[in-house]
This record gives sequence, C-alpha cells and structure tokens, in this order.
Amino acid sequence: MPKPSLIVRKLDPENKETPIQFIESGPIDNKLFFRRNHFSYPSLSQVSYWLPVNGLVNHPKLFSLEEIRMLPSRTVKVVLECAGNKRHFLEPKVYGEQWEKGAISEGYWKGVPLRDILKLAGIKQSAREVLVEGYDSGLRTDTDKIFTFSRSLPLEKAMHPDTLIAYEYNGQPIPFKHGYPLRLIVPQWYAMASVKWIRQISVIGSGFNGPFQSVDYVYYPNKETDADAYPVTIQNVNSTIQKPLNMEILNTGKHLIKGIAWTGKGVITKVEISLDHGKNWSSVEIGEPANHGYGWTSWTYEWSVTKKGEYTIMTRAADSHNRTQPENPFWNQKGYGHNAIDKIWVKVE
Amino acid sequence: MPKPSLIVRKLDPENKETPIQFIESGPIDNKLFFRRNHFSYPSLSQVSYWLPVNGLVNHPKLFSLEEIRMLPSRTVKVVLECAGNKRHFLEPKVYGEQWEKGAISEGYWKGVPLRDILKLAGIKQSAREVLVEGYDSGLRTDTDKIFTFSRSLPLEKAMHPDTLIAYEYNGQPIPFKHGYPLRLIVPQWYAMASVKWIRQISVIGSGFNGPFQSVDYVYYPNKETDADAYPVTIQNVNSTIQKPLNMEILNTGKHLIKGIAWTGKGVITKVEISLDHGKNWSSVEIGEPANHGYGWTSWTYEWSVTKKGEYTIMTRAADSHNRTQPENPFWNQKGYGHNAIDKIWVKVE
Repeated sequence: MPKPSLIVRKLDPENKETPIQFIESGPIDNKLFFRRNHFSYPSLSQVSYWLPVNGLVNHPKLFSLEEIRMLPSRTVKVVLECAGNKRHFLEPKVYGEQWEKGAISEGYWKGVPLRDILKLAGIKQSAREVLVEGYDSGLRTDTDKIFTFSRSLPLEKAMHPDTLIAYEYNGQPIPFKHGYPLRLIVPQWYAMASVKWIRQISVIGSGFNGPFQSVDYVYYPNKETDADAYPVTIQNVNSTIQKPLNMEILNTGKHLIKGIAWTGKGVITKVEISLDHGKNWSSVEIGEPANHGYGWTSWTYEWSVTKKGEYTIMTRAADSHNRTQPENPFWNQKGYGHNAIDKIWVKVE
Repeated sequence: MPKPSLIVRKLDPENKETPIQFIESGPIDNKLFFRRNHFSYPSLSQVSYWLPVNGLVNHPKLFSLEEIRMLPSRTVKVVLECAGNKRHFLEPKVYGEQWEKGAISEGYWKGVPLRDILKLAGIKQSAREVLVEGYDSGLRTDTDKIFTFSRSLPLEKAMHPDTLIAYEYNGQPIPFKHGYPLRLIVPQWYAMASVKWIRQISVIGSGFNGPFQSVDYVYYPNKETDADAYPVTIQNVNSTIQKPLNMEILNTGKHLIKGIAWTGKGVITKVEISLDHGKNWSSVEIGEPANHGYGWTSWTYEWSVTKKGEYTIMTRAADSHNRTQPENPFWNQKGYGHNAIDKIWVKVE
C-alpha cells in the first residue's frame, strides 16, 4: 500500500502539514507530524543542555537536562493544533501559510510540570507571566529586526499541572524538528504556545508584548482596522472528516465515514453528521473515552447510500462547555481558529 | 534544506502529485514524478517480457524485450501532463481527483518508435487505429464490470516518429510505478494516452470505444447533458507560477518570479506576466530554446517592488500556433484541460 508523506507548504522555513485524511489513528509519529516554523531551524550545536530559570524568582536556577529528567514526570496525550489550521478554507482568503486540515497532531508528551520548576526557583509576589524563549530566531517580513520566538503564559496557565517542560514524545527524545531537547507543552492552547527548543524561562511582572504575541496570534476581526483585537489562546471545538475524501466519486452501497473531533475546553460530548445540507443531523459513534487526556476523539459513521447523486457530508462537534462549531468560520485578518462545521462533497454513481 | 515529497491525493489507487512549486528544474526524478492510476498496480510477476503485436497486420509478432532494445532507438524530452491537472481550480468544482498544479512531469524517454514495430508487423490497408492495452485493470465506480486500461491512437499519431514504445526514463529502466518494462509515450497529448505497462498492441479497423476513451477523457462542456462532447487529445498551451507561493507574504525589494510554460502544439513563443490584475503585461525571460523536444520552458522575471500592498501575479503563455491561455478556464463536467491564465496573490509588507 502506498504511503502518505508530509505536504510541503514552504521549504524555508520548513512548513509541512500532515496528510490528515490518511492517518489511521493517533499518536502521530515523527514522520507525519506537521512542521510549523517561523524561522530556519536552530543548529544543534547552538542548543544548550542547561536551562536558565530567572526573572522574578527568589533563586535563579540553571537546570541541567539530567536534573530535569530526575524530577517527577507527567505524561499527557495532547492535540497540538496550529492556530492557522484550516486557514486555506477562509473566504475572503487571507495571506500566510495555506494550511488545509493537517496542521494538527496528537501524541504523548512526557516532562516535568513547569510549575515544579518554578516552585524550585520560588516565584515572587510581583510575578504576572512566565516568558518562554526558544532557540529559533530570525528576520520578520514586517520589520528589519531580528526576533527570537518567545511567548508568555499567564501565571495561572503556567502553573497548571499539565503545562510541561517536555523532553519525550511518544516515548522517545523529542525529535529535533519538534523542539529537542526541551519543549514547552501547553495543552488545550493552540500550538504557538508550545515553544520549541526552550532557551530560557523568565518570570516577569508585566504583560509580554513580543511580536508573536502582539502582532501574530491575535484575532483581528475587522478587515480594515485592528480594532477589537484579542489574543489567540485555547483551541476551538472542531471536527475533521477524514474519509471519504472531498470531491470523491463513490459507488452506491455502504461507506464508512470517519474522522476526528477535538476541543481546548473540557471534552467532546457529541459529534453529529448531516447528509442533507444540514437539515437533519445524526449522532455518530465516538471512540475511546473522550476525557482521556487532551487527545482527539475518533468517530465513525456507517453510511448506506442507494440513491445516486451529489451529496454534502457535514460534521459538527460539541464539548462539555456547550461550545459547538459555527456554520460559517469566524473571519479574522490572519485566519486563526477556523472551526466552522466541516463539509465535503461527494458524488455517488 | 528540507525536501519536498509527493502530495497524496489518494492511496489506493495511488494518486500523488508533484510539489511543482518546489521543483528547481527538469527532468523530474522518479521520487517526485506524479503518480496517476485508475487501478491498483499490476503485480510485477504478472507483467510479461513478451509484447504481442496483432490485429490488422500481415505478420502478427511477439517481440521480446531484448528484440525491442536491439532496434534503433530515439530519446525524447517530454512533458507528461494529466488531463485533470489544475482540476481543483475549476469553478463550479467538479468531482474526481483534486489535482492542483503538480500533475505534470518532464523527463527523457528512450524507446523504439511505435511505427517501426508496426512496420515490422506490416499494417493492413483496413487499419484505422492502434489499440494499446495496459496490465492495469479493475472495477470502475460507474459499472460492475472489470476493465483494462486501454486506449487507441489514430493511425497518424501512432505513426509519428516520436510516438515511442519506451523502456527507459532519464537513462534508467522505467520505474515500475511509471510503466515498467514498456510504456507508450505520446508526446504532446495529455498523459492518459501514454499507456503504462503495455500488455498488447492491436491494429484495429474501427474507432475504439473503451470507457477510458468514451466515458472518461472526454470534454463534456454542458453541465446537464452530454451534448457536444469531444475527446481529450493534445495538451493546451499553459503556464504555472512556481515562485512566489500563492498567498505568500513578501518584503519590499527584489523578488525572482519563476515558473514553467508548455504546449502540445508547436513551441512556446512567449510568456507574459501581469502585476496589475491583467491591465499591463510584460514579456518574461524564457529559458533554453523552447523547441528542444517536447519539454517545458522555464522562465524567470525579476520583480522590484517598493510599494506595500496586495498584488496579483498572472502569467499567460503563447505557442507557435497562436494559441494562448484564456482568462477563464474552459468548464467541462470532468474538469479536463484547465489552462486559464495562472494567477496567484501575494502581500508585500
């Protein structure tokens, strides 16, 4: 059986997406794990095995990789989804990487809770955010300045027990292209928060406003102005049909429709399917307990079709916070957070 | 530098396209050569090294691969383009593989002119077409019958000195997935004519009407009826922008715009570019002499852009038969022959 491979969107920096339609199930191995970079890869020789933790702490620390590995660990199953996943499907179209449905991954991350590290350093009363800097840096198209990829987390999210300084992915050291040796893992947030190649962690007393937080990864809902902007944080509830393929031609008979659903808030409680342009909806069978970590939920639906013709297949997921997928995507200048009802067309002949 | 790989459209049968935006130049090697199959691959053990030539001939023959290799050979540089290339961009959308711009390849094919083989067998006066059958077969979605992939050529095209029974691609035996050991190569026609894994060649006295000739690979210009249908044969004149990428964000400054142009009739005589929505057009620099075989023409254009904003980049090629690319694609039910002016959008900031 022929194999799928990553779909290239750009070679430098490397941006490639998972052929999600052809993924049988999670976790996603290194070979098919989407790659999203703002800059060229750092060089391995540049990456240090010492992690400084500083800023508003009582005892600034320099942790060795060995020390980090000796601390009590946690393993979480996490969906990492690029905030620009499904950007390609926005209308009117927006600039940037034209991600279709595969800027998403699921896998097991093992590491030390960030809060354990912060507690060892002792957080001062004046702390507001935790700034995490990566080893990747370079020029941005909108300025002539070099920036490092850096993001902050509000203290509350930084102190969540499942926010990890990870060192393993699916039981192996993190692949270099995904952040080796240390990567921040922020479950439930879009993946820009999960900073790769951690270089430094600083506790700060004010709101960080680096360009990957104040320019990019911000929802700008208006086409002409930047009014009403607000930051991209948690994943929207979402679903993707994997099978059949969009615009596929099928025989009459039985077809297994399958896909995934995920959310950044609570768990998936329901996935519904419509085969008549959204008039009627049926619940589909959802896989393993949805509350197992922060993974996605696989679902299937057996479709018996006897009448020839053109059909749309639509799916919508709901989560335990009563969030559901809107009929139309929320348009914003940079095309983040697309989670409209998923829709494909097929022809039965 | 990260590498591109084939983009999967379907796994079984295997349909994958070339990441054409990331191809530096031709010929395309086996790894990045698009794959277009109607059926699962034949098994190697099924494929015979004997080629029967029969039908309306004076001396039916059975050629061994050795005999074929001993005959005088020709090598031609050929663009193979799937008739459904660029189908994805048709509006309204049509069913079938959603090829973007990469169902196209360029390379060197070596083989024996089909006419030399036919002459050895001696064509009878009543001959009208030459039927070429492949080893690939299977069910079609529109019937419950098994068909072999078979296509005929009118005698005139079959007797063209560059219509080959090929056995080498880029100096190597043809890769199995591309038709090993023998593949018909029909320069200037869309690639469905270049039958892979040749099983048999028959000279026939009437028009062949197998489903890959009478159902598929037919232009149906009307949405509701099959009136005015006519067969898909020669490639339209066409061009593709490889660089920059669609929806890319660029700096102000100099950018090299590059791409390819090709035609199934004569040679490319001109490629023009427009940066102002088609108001003004400038000629671009075209590469190596366009009349070198049936290859594509690479072209480049140096763009100096100082004004920030959104731009469209459009290209249109013309050939020595005064054919040019239309503004809008010719819509047809099955989405063949898309050759509208190529168009991408970029933002300069």
